[in-house]
Amino acid sequence: MRKVKGMPLAVIAGYGEGLGEAIKQTFENDGYQVVTISRSGGMILADTTDANEVNRAFAQISVLHGTPAVVICNTAMLTIERFLSTTSKRFEETWRTSVMSVFNIAQATIPMMIKQGGGTFLVTGATAGIKGSKNFSAFSSAKFALRGLTQSLAREFQPQRIHVSHIVVDGILWSSKSQERFPSLRQETAIEPNDAAKVYLSLAKQPASAWTQEIDIRPYSEVF
Amino acid sequence: MRKVKGMPLAVIAGYGEGLGEAIKQTFENDGYQVVTISRSGGMILADTTDANEVNRAFAQISVLHGTPAVVICNTAMLTIERFLSTTSKRFEETWRTSVMSVFNIAQATIPMMIKQGGGTFLVTGATAGIKGSKNFSAFSSAKFALRGLTQSLAREFQPQRIHVSHIVVDGILWSSKSQERFPSLRQETAIEPNDAAKVYLSLAKQPASAWTQEIDIRPYSEVF
Amino acid sequence: MRKVKGMPLAVIAGYGEGLGEAIKQTFENDGYQVVTISRSGGMILADTTDANEVNRAFAQISVLHGTPAVVICNTAMLTIERFLSTTSKRFEETWRTSVMSVFNIAQATIPMMIKQGGGTFLVTGATAGIKGSKNFSAFSSAKFALRGLTQSLAREFQPQRIHVSHIVVDGILWSSKSQERFPSLRQETAIEPNDAAKVYLSLAKQPASAWTQEIDIRPYSEVF
Amino acid sequence: MRKVKGMPLAVIAGYGEGLGEAIKQTFENDGYQVVTISRSGGMILADTTDANEVNRAFAQISVLHGTPAVVICNTAMLTIERFLSTTSKRFEETWRTSVMSVFNIAQATIPMMIKQGGGTFLVTGATAGIKGSKNFSAFSSAKFALRGLTQSLAREFQPQRIHVSHIVVDGILWSSKSQERFPSLRQETAIEPNDAAKVYLSLAKQPASAWTQEIDIRPYSEVF
Repeated sequence: MRKVKGMPLAVIAGYGEGLGEAIKQTFENDGYQVVTISRSGGMILADTTDANEVNRAFAQISVLHGTPAVVICNTAMLTIERFLSTTSKRFEETWRTSVMSVFNIAQATIPMMIKQGGGTFLVTGATAGIKGSKNFSAFSSAKFALRGLTQSLAREFQPQRIHVSHIVVDGILWSSKSQERFPSLRQETAIEPNDAAKVYLSLAKQPASAWTQEIDIRPYSEVF
Repeated sequence: MRKVKGMPLAVIAGYGEGLGEAIKQTFENDGYQVVTISRSGGMILADTTDANEVNRAFAQISVLHGTPAVVICNTAMLTIERFLSTTSKRFEETWRTSVMSVFNIAQATIPMMIKQGGGTFLVTGATAGIKGSKNFSAFSSAKFALRGLTQSLAREFQPQRIHVSHIVVDGILWSSKSQERFPSLRQETAIEPNDAAKVYLSLAKQPASAWTQEIDIRPYSEVF
Repeated sequence: MRKVKGMPLAVIAGYGEGLGEAIKQTFENDGYQVVTISRSGGMILADTTDANEVNRAFAQISVLHGTPAVVICNTAMLTIERFLSTTSKRFEETWRTSVMSVFNIAQATIPMMIKQGGGTFLVTGATAGIKGSKNFSAFSSAKFALRGLTQSLAREFQPQRIHVSHIVVDGILWSSKSQERFPSLRQETAIEPNDAAKVYLSLAKQPASAWTQEIDIRPYSEVF
Repeated sequence: MRKVKGMPLAVIAGYGEGLGEAIKQTFENDGYQVVTISRSGGMILADTTDANEVNRAFAQISVLHGTPAVVICNTAMLTIERFLSTTSKRFEETWRTSVMSVFNIAQATIPMMIKQGGGTFLVTGATAGIKGSKNFSAFSSAKFALRGLTQSLAREFQPQRIHVSHIVVDGILWSSKSQERFPSLRQETAIEPNDAAKVYLSLAKQPASAWTQEIDIRPYSEVF
C-alpha cells in the first residue's frame, strides 16, 4: 500500500460497517485512496481516544500514503439512558470517544494539512448536539462539545485553508447494527448510508469561496 | 417554449445577474429546463410580492412547461441602515420582498408539486436571519421571518415529499452589482456565484433519505 | 391623570385581560405609574400597526405623563392553521400585529428614552420564534421576525442605555380567553400571568452591568 | 454549623472571590443558609471533578445542614489559547472542571432534592457555550458540553420539580483576579458580581409556573 500518485487521500476514523463503509466506497468511487482507522476492523488499528496511538497511526499513514486531503471523524458512543443510571465512567467514555478522539485527530492532521496548503476536516454530529433531550445527558453533552470544538476549529483554521464542517445526522442510519438495536426501524424512515456519504463527498469538493460549516440531513419522514 | 419531454423544470424567482443567473446556468448544464421570474429581466415578468401576479405566473408556467420539480426563491431587498433612519415603508417593503414573496410562491407551487409526487423548494437566507446585528433591523427581521417560514414549511410538507431547504449565504456574492455597492470588496474574499449555485443543485438532487433543511456557505476567509 | 412626580412610567402596548393586566398590576404594586394602549379596552385607544396612531398615542402620553422608563410590547395574533388554509391577508395581519407594531412603538419611544438617559424595551416572544413548527407558518414567521428585530435593536441601542429584552413565553398563559380556546388546558400546566409578569419587572430592574437580552419561561411540566 | 430551622439551604460549588462570594452574600442577605465547596477556600474542601469527593461532601452537608434547596455550579477553567498549543491534558482538564464537576454534583444532589419535593439547580455558562470562537476550542467545547448537559437535565427532571437553569455570562466579571488577567478591563464595561448574583437569586425564586431554562447577562456596553 504505497502512496498512489495523483490520488487524493481520505482518512476515515471511527470506521464501521454502516456510515464508515459507505463513505469509504463513495470516496473510492470518486477516485480517492481511502485509509480507515478503527479499534478493530480498520486498515489501521488504533484507539483514537489515545493521543499516542493517533499520532502513531498518522505517522504511519504519512509515510505510506502521504498527507490526507480529507479527514473524516466518525467516532461515537451512543448512550441513551436515564441520567441517574449513567455512571461517571460511562459519561466520561461517551465524551472521550466523541470529543477527545476528534481533538487528537485534529492535533495530528491539521498541521500537516496546513503545510500541504489545505484540507478538509469533516465531523459527524447529531441532533443531540443541537438539543439536549431527556435520557440523552451523556450523549448530548458529548455531541454539544463536539459542535463547539468544530466551530472553534473552523474559525481558527479556515483562513489557513482547512475546511471544517459539522454534519448533523438527524435520524437513524440503516445498517444491520441499527436494525438490531431498534427492531421497529423501517428502511423507509431511516437514512441510507450511501445517501449520507454523498453529503460528505460534496463537502470535500466545495470550492473555497463557498464552504459549509454546518449541514443537517434527515429522512423526509422524520419528525423534527 | 413548450414543455420539453423528460427535462425536469426549475423555476427561479427573484432572478438577477449574480446568483440567479449562476443558478440558471448550473441547472441548465445539468439538464434542467429553467424558467425565471422577475420584476424586470426574467423570462416571466411578475411582482412576487403580489399573490395575483404570482398565481398568474405559475398558471402560465404550468401550461407552457408543466409542474416545477424545483422552485428557488431568491427575492431580497438588502436594507442596511440605522434603525431610526428606517421608514416604516422601507421596513415593510424589505419584509414584503423577502417573506411575502416566498409565501406567495409556496402557496402557488406546493400544491401542484404534492400532486406530482414531490418537489424541492429552496430559499436563499442570510446570516442576518440567524443573528440580528446593528443597522440590520429591517433586513434581519425579514430574514429571520423567512427562516421561520421555511422551518414551518419543512415540518409541514416534507412528509408529503416536498423538500424545503434554507441556504444561509454568509458573505457577499461577487457580481458587478456588489462591486459597485462595496467598492473595497475583493474577489478572493467574496462568494463565487457559480460555487454557490452548485450548492442549490446538490440540494435539489438529495435523495429523500438524507434531506438537508439548512446549510450555510461562506468564503474560507470570512470572519464569522 | 397628570405626571406623578417621582413615579417611573411604564407603558404596556397590546394590553389585554391576561398577561397585560398582570403586568400592569405587578408594575403598579412596585410603584410604577402604568399606561396601557390597546385597540379597545386600554387607557389609550390606538391601532399599533399604524405608525400615525402610535405616534399620536405617545405624544399624548408624553404630555400627560412624561417619557416612559419601561415600554412593554405585547401585541400578537395567534395563528395556528394549515399553511394551505392560511390566506395572504391573514399571514400579513399576523406579521403586522406582532412585528410592525413593535417597529412603530420602538420608533416612537427609543429616541425619547435615549434623550432621557435610558430605558427598558421589553418584547413578548414565543417558542414559535425559535422553532418553526407545522401549522405555525404565519405565527412562527412573525415571531422569528420579532426576535430578529429585538436582537438588532439590542445591538444598536444598548450602548445608548436602552435595554432591549425578548421574553420567550413557552406555554399557554392561564386566562379566561385561553381556557375558552384550549378547553383541555389545566391551571397546573399553564403559566400563571402574575408569575410571568414578575419576569418583566425583574428585567426592568436589572442594573446596566448585567442586562438580559433573552429569557425563556415555561411551566415545570412543559415538554420542550 | 447545624441545620438552621426554617432557613433554606444553598450550596455553591466552585466558590471563589468574585461571583461565588457575591452569590453567597446575596443568598445570605435573602435569608438562605449558604455552604460553599471549593478545592481551597470553601467551607467544605473537595475536588468536584472527583465523584467520591463530591459524594462525601454532600453526605457531610446533608448531615449537618439538610438537603439543599438550591445548588449552584460555578466551577470553570478558562482556557484561551491557540488550538495547536493546547495539550490534550489541558483540553481534558478544562472539560473535567466544567462538565464532570456538574455531572458529579447533579448525581449527588438531584435524588435528594426530588425526595424533598423539588429544588433549583443553577449552572454558570458562557458565551463560549453558544458560539465556538478562535482560540477557544477547549473552553468552548467544555461550555457547549455543559449547555447540552443542563438542557438534558432540565427536560428529564423539571417534571419532578427540579428547576435546571443555565446562565450565559457574556462578559468579564469585575474582580481582582480578572483585573490581573485583563489589565485593560474597566469597571464600567465589566459585569458587577453583585448584579450577576441577583440573577441567580431571582432564578431560585421563580414559581413553578414560569421557570427559566436559559438566561444571558452582559454589560450594556458589550459588543455581541
